Amino acid sequence: MGRTKHIGAASADRIKDKRKMQPSPEVLIEGIHKGDIALLARALTSIESTKKADRDKAHSIVESCLSKDIKSVRIGITGVPGVGKSTFIEAFGKLLTGEGKKVAVLAVDPSSSLSRGSILGDKTRMPELAKNPAAFIRPSPSGESLGGVARKTRESILLCEAAGFEVILIETVGVGQSEFAVHSMVDFFLLLKIAGAGDELQGIKRGIIEMADAIVINKTDGSNVKYATQARSQFERALHLYPPKNNGWVPKVLNCSALKGEGIAEVWKLITGFLSENTLNGHLELHRKDQNKNWLLQAVDDFLKTEFYRHPGVQKRLNKMMAEVQANLKSPFRAAEELLEYYTNKGSNR
Amino acid sequence: MGRTKHIGAASADRIKDKRKMQPSPEVLIEGIHKGDIALLARALTSIESTKKADRDKAHSIVESCLSKDIKSVRIGITGVPGVGKSTFIEAFGKLLTGEGKKVAVLAVDPSSSLSRGSILGDKTRMPELAKNPAAFIRPSPSGESLGGVARKTRESILLCEAAGFEVILIETVGVGQSEFAVHSMVDFFLLLKIAGAGDELQGIKRGIIEMADAIVINKTDGSNVKYATQARSQFERALHLYPPKNNGWVPKVLNCSALKGEGIAEVWKLITGFLSENTLNGHLELHRKDQNKNWLLQAVDDFLKTEFYRHPGVQKRLNKMMAEVQANLKSPFRAAEELLEYYTNKGSNR
Repeated sequence: MGRTKHIGAASADRIKDKRKMQPSPEVLIEGIHKGDIALLARALTSIESTKKADRDKAHSIVESCLSKDIKSVRIGITGVPGVGKSTFIEAFGKLLTGEGKKVAVLAVDPSSSLSRGSILGDKTRMPELAKNPAAFIRPSPSGESLGGVARKTRESILLCEAAGFEVILIETVGVGQSEFAVHSMVDFFLLLKIAGAGDELQGIKRGIIEMADAIVINKTDGSNVKYATQARSQFERALHLYPPKNNGWVPKVLNCSALKGEGIAEVWKLITGFLSENTLNGHLELHRKDQNKNWLLQAVDDFLKTEFYRHPGVQKRLNKMMAEVQANLKSPFRAAEELLEYYTNKGSNR
Repeated sequence: MGRTKHIGAASADRIKDKRKMQPSPEVLIEGIHKGDIALLARALTSIESTKKADRDKAHSIVESCLSKDIKSVRIGITGVPGVGKSTFIEAFGKLLTGEGKKVAVLAVDPSSSLSRGSILGDKTRMPELAKNPAAFIRPSPSGESLGGVARKTRESILLCEAAGFEVILIETVGVGQSEFAVHSMVDFFLLLKIAGAGDELQGIKRGIIEMADAIVINKTDGSNVKYATQARSQFERALHLYPPKNNGWVPKVLNCSALKGEGIAEVWKLITGFLSENTLNGHLELHRKDQNKNWLLQAVDDFLKTEFYRHPGVQKRLNKMMAEVQANLKSPFRAAEELLEYYTNKGSNR
């Protein structure tokens, strides 16, 4: 902790002098590997850039951060607004930094980029952790698409790990497609809930419960204890009816009160148990290799689709065709073929 | 029923004479709309063809079958081998044809196309239904990819509906990605299970339970009744913990014995209840419109990916890059960009 703070302070001075100057990739790489938080932050900004020139720089930074060894745990945390994600991350981060771990909090929230203000990874939501020198909080990168945001977050994870962060928390809101993206980049996926299957469930996206490695029922405090404990047994029974995961892991259900700091240590114990089990049986390494492969396929996919839907010929006709298809006036397959014809003729003068 | 048989027999003779001749699209279209099963079968063969010339013919056939009115119910049926899918479809089909309905059974099974023999939609598995003139059974179309198989099945649905089939059953095995494809083409998704959460669950793909509109526990007979009834209450409790579907439908759990023909009428009653509810609230129409839209997007997606992965420059390098990425020697994003560079230079001499 002391070391981190010291280097961070020194580099902050250095940067103040050259605020206008963009550090070279070499300086950034060296800074990251030294655990310099200010330079890590600058490197993250640089990989978030969409400028072509910055992309090459970004590649060399990211590749310097690839590691064959698994030095961190990547934990996805999701839950609808109101379940207490910030409070949970504050309490969880406090526990981990107290044990001497360096903790990075990243966020995936494509919706926030529209308003240019992220509701996730906001430092004011986690005031204690934000002040903690062993913690690093980064809001959701802005980007026009979930694909863009997800890619930048995946790269950010690698940089944070190279900077010595041992626990990477990736926060998202359980209401859209972003949980599936977060699930594809973590070792362990945690669903935060509160008791009461009514209103709270309305917001959550179907499919998320089956992705969870653990369901943690927060706000198990005060008059809520009874319901939260009942909710735990209900979910425990329900999860047993699911097919087991590939790695043999049976998802667990826990209670906690992030506000009172109760049950937080049990969550960490569960995750470390998961980690040793999956390190021993080789599934952790296998899982990360598969994820790397899928990141490649996903990046290709995102690129192909972006190019297609950006094409003026396609853009001009897409809405009209979509309306015709929805009204059963045109076959979806004919419409697709027609759009593809406009697209594949893009290089010619036709 | 008599009418169907009569026309079918007449056209069978006609076809015997001209066995070598491919009927024109006009003849096929007329035949389909008259409910001529032999010509429907020939039209299906023609839309399953991958020849470019046949595609244009296929388009005109498919478009003649588009209808603004919803005249059928599309039911997906999935379950791992051993749950009794064939027996269930036999019993279910018998009930429906007994009520005067015309029933088509299609199958989505991409794996079967490798061995050129389909394990699904096989007429020998449903001997009674295969002899029934009000029923039409079609094995899984062959195709190199799930995308291809799914597309052909989607088109087949439209043709069967135009031929007057009012219940379209689409059968698949609950172990791969094909259930997600089937889910995208049906109004109602039925998961067939047997009691015993152990071995049987091993085979099923995660995520399928959350897609189901109904879970039907088959083989509720003999010494199994006790366990099957217990399984029903367990699943009922579990399903209440899921978020509700967009249409407000809460998935139901039923018991049945396809072998004894017990509980089959209850399944149909459930589905008709679902249909009237969703017709009234407009969700059925909305859902089909959304599906049409997604079929278009999916067709575009399949085409873009197929072209990419077929490109010689990509094929040559993909495996090597994949290995480097999995070994953390190369960033997945750099690898993707390099592959895309080879691909986008495809038209030039570089």
